[in-house]
Amino acid sequence: MIKKLAITGGTHGNELTGVYLVKKWQKSPELIKRSNFETITQLMNKRAITEVRRYVDQDLNRSFGLKDLANDNLENYESKLAKELNSQLGKKGSDNPKVDFIVDLHTTTANMGLSIVVSNPSRITWRAIAYLCKMEPLLRVYRWQGDIENAFVDSISPHGFAIEVGAVPQGVLRADLFLQTEALIYHLLDYVEKENSGEDLGLANEIEIYDHEVLVDYPRDKEGDIVAMVHQERQDRDFTLIEQGDPLFLTLDNETISYEGDPRYTLFVNEAAYYEKGFAMTLARKRQVEIIDSLAQYKASIN
Amino acid sequence: MIKKLAITGGTHGNELTGVYLVKKWQKSPELIKRSNFETITQLMNKRAITEVRRYVDQDLNRSFGLKDLANDNLENYESKLAKELNSQLGKKGSDNPKVDFIVDLHTTTANMGLSIVVSNPSRITWRAIAYLCKMEPLLRVYRWQGDIENAFVDSISPHGFAIEVGAVPQGVLRADLFLQTEALIYHLLDYVEKENSGEDLGLANEIEIYDHEVLVDYPRDKEGDIVAMVHQERQDRDFTLIEQGDPLFLTLDNETISYEGDPRYTLFVNEAAYYEKGFAMTLARKRQVEIIDSLAQYKASIN
Repeated sequence: MIKKLAITGGTHGNELTGVYLVKKWQKSPELIKRSNFETITQLMNKRAITEVRRYVDQDLNRSFGLKDLANDNLENYESKLAKELNSQLGKKGSDNPKVDFIVDLHTTTANMGLSIVVSNPSRITWRAIAYLCKMEPLLRVYRWQGDIENAFVDSISPHGFAIEVGAVPQGVLRADLFLQTEALIYHLLDYVEKENSGEDLGLANEIEIYDHEVLVDYPRDKEGDIVAMVHQERQDRDFTLIEQGDPLFLTLDNETISYEGDPRYTLFVNEAAYYEKGFAMTLARKRQVEIIDSLAQYKASIN
Repeated sequence: MIKKLAITGGTHGNELTGVYLVKKWQKSPELIKRSNFETITQLMNKRAITEVRRYVDQDLNRSFGLKDLANDNLENYESKLAKELNSQLGKKGSDNPKVDFIVDLHTTTANMGLSIVVSNPSRITWRAIAYLCKMEPLLRVYRWQGDIENAFVDSISPHGFAIEVGAVPQGVLRADLFLQTEALIYHLLDYVEKENSGEDLGLANEIEIYDHEVLVDYPRDKEGDIVAMVHQERQDRDFTLIEQGDPLFLTLDNETISYEGDPRYTLFVNEAAYYEKGFAMTLARKRQVEIIDSLAQYKASIN
């Protein structure tokens, strides 16, 4: 039973879709009211929102690791903010969390369309995704699992994921993507209401996902500055296959660097915020995953 | 006779095309060497480039007004930087300028394609533009004349303009637009070389321009926050006609606000940097202007 769901926006202060959707719903809360659970909204990084920047001192959406949350020596703006938000919406790992489900609203400069980034393996999370895929056939699902603990906003509640929509520049509100994100949230709220009431949702047994495999960085010089761009034939081609020999980068001297590797799907191609993080795109495999009742079985089915 | 031309990039630190073109040419100066004049390059706002921000304290590309350049009380980062750059590349209004022609490289999140923003009425400036339009038929020309003195970078030299390419997000390098901008600069250098040598350029007598008329701001609340977005049917429609009754904005409550006015062309639609400046787009008229020898005649022909 989901008792409380939080819609969070402005985790990155220059991703305006989530900021203005939350402002809209704070003005018109009836739009997100459903019969059998509570929906709350939260503007996350208010100082970054005011400054229209991704963050002030460090990326808030990488600040929810358990060690960092417990480390009183971390005192920069987002470190402290993460602790406050964890108290308010978590706590992470708690048996008695204040919020059961977090959906965190993001945008990307990459041509990701309407997509979900999910790390949480919970059954409710994946049934929600299955429902959304049924209601919105264009929705794509990117499962992100790094080597380290997931420190995303949605990791502080038992269930949740992030929505990523693009392409939209930082600091820009695009009406088309605003409307798509809004519609997806209403589907999510409908899902929770139906799930809570025990309704048979007729969900598919399997859904198609893009499973994270590896990050690909730009070619760089000794100082770390990029010396090549995403090749014009790869630009905007998120969720498409790249194969051995396909153009990958174009150097500043106009030489093409080709992809060397097994066929994979490219995602987050040329996202502005990832230049500093050290990747030009991610590579993923496309897989079918079973939505089954037990987390243990779920894990076994895909690994 | 043009003796020295400056290619300036990174006037806005998050507009990467100009930054990386200048870096390329500083590494390979032979690419911009021509026989009868000198070409120099300059990274303009180095601190903003490092921070991948438009500016640190104020917009450098609005900092070259004569009064501000002469005001020793202005001491923020860009105010001081503008004075340094004016000494190095100007001085503005001087009879003996250090540089004869400045082309300042910009990008925009609006779908402006390959375009020129020009305020300078000089004959050489307009002959250069006529040559570029001949060599690059997709190039469009936006004549910007505000009520106040032009304080753009290119205003400190006798001739010049800005190149704007888009759509590209802030903080992103797009290979396609990089290549288009690069090619345009080589055409400009060819023009100067031919003009200097007295070659007959066979320029058209008239060129088509978009003449700035008015700024259109977003609908805002009492606090100044936007309450509507560019309508999805107007998004990306730069250099296209808007007519009475066409959708202009979509409020956050999903109501359409229509355009009320005479037919005009919309430009800089939904540019990220202009939210804070207070406009959602500009309106322009399309005109033919004559390229004739005397500035006085030129002025008479278009007003």
